[in-house]
Amino acid sequence: MSAASSTPVYTGTRESNGVIRALLTDLYQITMAYAYWKSDKMDDKSVFDLYFRRNPFKGEYTLFAGLEECVKLLQNFSFSESDINYLKTVMPVEQEFFDYLAGLSAKDVTLLAVDEGTVVFPKVPLLTVEGPLAVVQLLETPLLNLINYASLVATNAMRFRMAAGSSKSLLEFGLRRAQGPDGGLSASRYCYMGGFDGTSNALAGKMFGIPLRGTHAHAFVTSYSSLREIKSRKLKRKEGSEEVDFVDLCLKWQTQLASDMSFLADQVGEGELAAFIAYAQAFPDNMLALIDTYDVLRSGLPNFCTVAMALHELGYQARGIRLDSGDLAYLSSVVRAVFCKLAKQYQLAWFEKLTIVASNDINEDTILSLNTQGHDIDSFGIGTHLVTCQKQPALGCVFKLVEVNGQPTMKLSEDVEKVSIPGKKRAYRLFGADGTALVDLMLQMEEDVPSVGQRTLCRHPTQESKRAYVSPARIDLLHHEYWKNGKIMKELPPLGDLRKRAFESMQTLRQDHKRALNPTPYKVSVTSSLYTFIHDLWLQNAPIGELS
Amino acid sequence: MSAASSTPVYTGTRESNGVIRALLTDLYQITMAYAYWKSDKMDDKSVFDLYFRRNPFKGEYTLFAGLEECVKLLQNFSFSESDINYLKTVMPVEQEFFDYLAGLSAKDVTLLAVDEGTVVFPKVPLLTVEGPLAVVQLLETPLLNLINYASLVATNAMRFRMAAGSSKSLLEFGLRRAQGPDGGLSASRYCYMGGFDGTSNALAGKMFGIPLRGTHAHAFVTSYSSLREIKSRKLKRKEGSEEVDFVDLCLKWQTQLASDMSFLADQVGEGELAAFIAYAQAFPDNMLALIDTYDVLRSGLPNFCTVAMALHELGYQARGIRLDSGDLAYLSSVVRAVFCKLAKQYQLAWFEKLTIVASNDINEDTILSLNTQGHDIDSFGIGTHLVTCQKQPALGCVFKLVEVNGQPTMKLSEDVEKVSIPGKKRAYRLFGADGTALVDLMLQMEEDVPSVGQRTLCRHPTQESKRAYVSPARIDLLHHEYWKNGKIMKELPPLGDLRKRAFESMQTLRQDHKRALNPTPYKVSVTSSLYTFIHDLWLQNAPIGELS
Repeated sequence: MSAASSTPVYTGTRESNGVIRALLTDLYQITMAYAYWKSDKMDDKSVFDLYFRRNPFKGEYTLFAGLEECVKLLQNFSFSESDINYLKTVMPVEQEFFDYLAGLSAKDVTLLAVDEGTVVFPKVPLLTVEGPLAVVQLLETPLLNLINYASLVATNAMRFRMAAGSSKSLLEFGLRRAQGPDGGLSASRYCYMGGFDGTSNALAGKMFGIPLRGTHAHAFVTSYSSLREIKSRKLKRKEGSEEVDFVDLCLKWQTQLASDMSFLADQVGEGELAAFIAYAQAFPDNMLALIDTYDVLRSGLPNFCTVAMALHELGYQARGIRLDSGDLAYLSSVVRAVFCKLAKQYQLAWFEKLTIVASNDINEDTILSLNTQGHDIDSFGIGTHLVTCQKQPALGCVFKLVEVNGQPTMKLSEDVEKVSIPGKKRAYRLFGADGTALVDLMLQMEEDVPSVGQRTLCRHPTQESKRAYVSPARIDLLHHEYWKNGKIMKELPPLGDLRKRAFESMQTLRQDHKRALNPTPYKVSVTSSLYTFIHDLWLQNAPIGELS
Repeated sequence: MSAASSTPVYTGTRESNGVIRALLTDLYQITMAYAYWKSDKMDDKSVFDLYFRRNPFKGEYTLFAGLEECVKLLQNFSFSESDINYLKTVMPVEQEFFDYLAGLSAKDVTLLAVDEGTVVFPKVPLLTVEGPLAVVQLLETPLLNLINYASLVATNAMRFRMAAGSSKSLLEFGLRRAQGPDGGLSASRYCYMGGFDGTSNALAGKMFGIPLRGTHAHAFVTSYSSLREIKSRKLKRKEGSEEVDFVDLCLKWQTQLASDMSFLADQVGEGELAAFIAYAQAFPDNMLALIDTYDVLRSGLPNFCTVAMALHELGYQARGIRLDSGDLAYLSSVVRAVFCKLAKQYQLAWFEKLTIVASNDINEDTILSLNTQGHDIDSFGIGTHLVTCQKQPALGCVFKLVEVNGQPTMKLSEDVEKVSIPGKKRAYRLFGADGTALVDLMLQMEEDVPSVGQRTLCRHPTQESKRAYVSPARIDLLHHEYWKNGKIMKELPPLGDLRKRAFESMQTLRQDHKRALNPTPYKVSVTSSLYTFIHDLWLQNAPIGELS
């Protein structure tokens, strides 16, 4: 436990195959492993549940994400020689323990999990991990690390999607504000799973096949100060090979539009016009301009329309504009009105439909408020509030031992919500005739599986009076074996499929569970038998107080 | 820009040497690079400032962190062949552009930076990056990514340190709640820099030499249900080789203490006692027990004292306890009172000083509130709120072009706070005779450097009436060349030295800048000449409105 004295080589959090390293765990997992080993308890057959206690963001649903990385962690789990050598300096214990550590793998671990991309609820395990006590304990920290943020940010993305509606395009622009490089990559991956349409993160595009989006920044605009800086004035017509003086063409349109749109040609930023011209020369078929560097209505919008009309004369269609400051509801409406006016005047139907992107510190509430005010934005570029999950920056998953050597265990707490549900369990989702999810039901392993059409009593896990009969029209088993005997047991679908599953899973939820304000809690329940079992064990373990 | 269809191999955010990959950037940096290249502007000499506009957490200071990673990014900056091949699928443009991209490096870039670990303030550049326009633009996203979170979490750590005082031990336990693996590693690294004493993150311990801390979790306790599960009952005396029946010894002490401490031997958790015994057998010299699994006062504390006294009889000293739930002020005081009582009764002075660690969802306000209430905690284990920076999860650094080809540039905004300070600048920190930092002063490159003892007029950058004369007793140049001509120009100190620098830098700040509630803003100023220059350029660029 020596103090920092030199800077070791940064070896990264992942092995060369991209899987996170076994040493990326809390020290106490290793000290516990030693204590288990020392008392010959390391191979006790244990069952741990990974779950969360409350949905994030004051909502009533959560998207489960991060499973693929967990399975790959199990597939590759082992300590390197270099890691073992380091641990020897931290814990001066018997060499035999380090030999034991060096030989560890996850081959005797079984992982049951909800399918990634499914909507999930508090208390129902996302993962149930069975295996030798010390090994499963060592897995706690990396499993929590891989699930917590992934599920949180996927849920956040889905909330933005619910707020924006299905017709809007949602783009993730968060790389610069995420928790370091890997935080940025996780954000891009799981925001796409949670219903976003694209990302600005080029590496995420490459690694996960996420559609990439992005045009230019303010710096591109401020890097130009006058039209004299444009080195080649030419642009080729879209059809044919004729090259025209594009700068002259833009200036012609500037004069024309100054009267159509009532702007003053001497008030528009000349540098901004130069930048838009240069950008149009580079991307004549993909011209989307950031128009708020100087003044949206007096400079940015006139300059964009100038270049867009000049492009049109050469056979190209501009894409649209981006707003990164100011009153987005008002500005987007004024911009749309101008697009409509020009569309009508020049009989260019597509001009009316130019894309308006907004990207100024947008959060879920901003979108809800824009919806109320009315706006003309087609696409939102969202960074900081999406990736940092500003409303609630941690999900709070926990990993609790529920059974050891066949004996159920439980952690008590003065806070009823924190009491864990002991024993290995099965969990089902019960659906109504219209396909709506009614309730999640947990039962003990030896209980009969509920069946379609049969009245089943579902009880609140801790509140005695809360219970209801349900006659399900469909029953889904929630957990599936993903890893057993050292093998991946179930296919890990590509990201695009997980994204589809997320939308499908959300569709089974009643609207009142999904609304932004005061949503109705979805019911998570236990069978009568499990209820009695929990409460008996609880009483058995809780000391009796003495008031004095 | 194809949709996700298959799962590519996860190649990680970093190259094998740990440096982040050039492709970890926003797509718009690459589209801009293309537009610059297309108009032969890619080598325009540019200057960008990286700075933030407001201190985080409603505070008035920020710790600068992340510089070493930035320098290493410059040292290794290049696009791999595989990355270029991917970009070709995203942007179907000329092969010559991709040849240009493939040949890029940061050899023509110069990096000026504040020393890492220094206290910094809004508007003063943390980095000034000079070089070819397209290259520096490409660096924007990774530089922001590396600085934003590092500085935010280091600042957060320092705020916890200020709240807790120098005598408390602060431990970072955040790996499981961070933004993925790398987020967790960055958190550990920069929390240590910001004044924490240790981390639970074993990989961070290895990579950065941070002291590791951690004992055991609730699961360790719940994994035992009775004393029968203890396989070997023996423990060796610290001196000599005699082995005794440690379980019997504990049971003897249980009987003794039940009367000393007035607890009921049949109300303590037998499984918990078994767990503590097993842990003590593994770490007889390092026994720190988590005592809140069942009931702190009726079970956890009696069981700990039982084992601690038995250990003492064999020549060992226990370390202490950890509380992870409940009323920490109250419980820590009751626990300390019991330690004092036993210390007195058995004349064991060290028993009074056993360590009390608290770790239940602690944030800065919890510590401040505990200080007000009075408590007996020695050490705080802090996770979620520290690493997610729950109070403000993003710092909001920006990267603004301030000069191109020798011409100053500026981004306007309706929000005065968002207007950038144009041109390449020099910055100094002016100190009073007692070593206190008085003001940061930015000046134009051609201006005379302020000198010690000389009255210097310092003006607020935007508010005309705010100005003051300062006669500094010491003047520190804030920026130093860290990278030039393809070489590292200044030593990158090890993490432990950066941590020392952070404490030293904080000590130069007046107390009222550092206090938690309504701190006084530290002054950031410009010279008269720079003030006039900013405002002239501003008027020159801002369009004039017409009220109608």
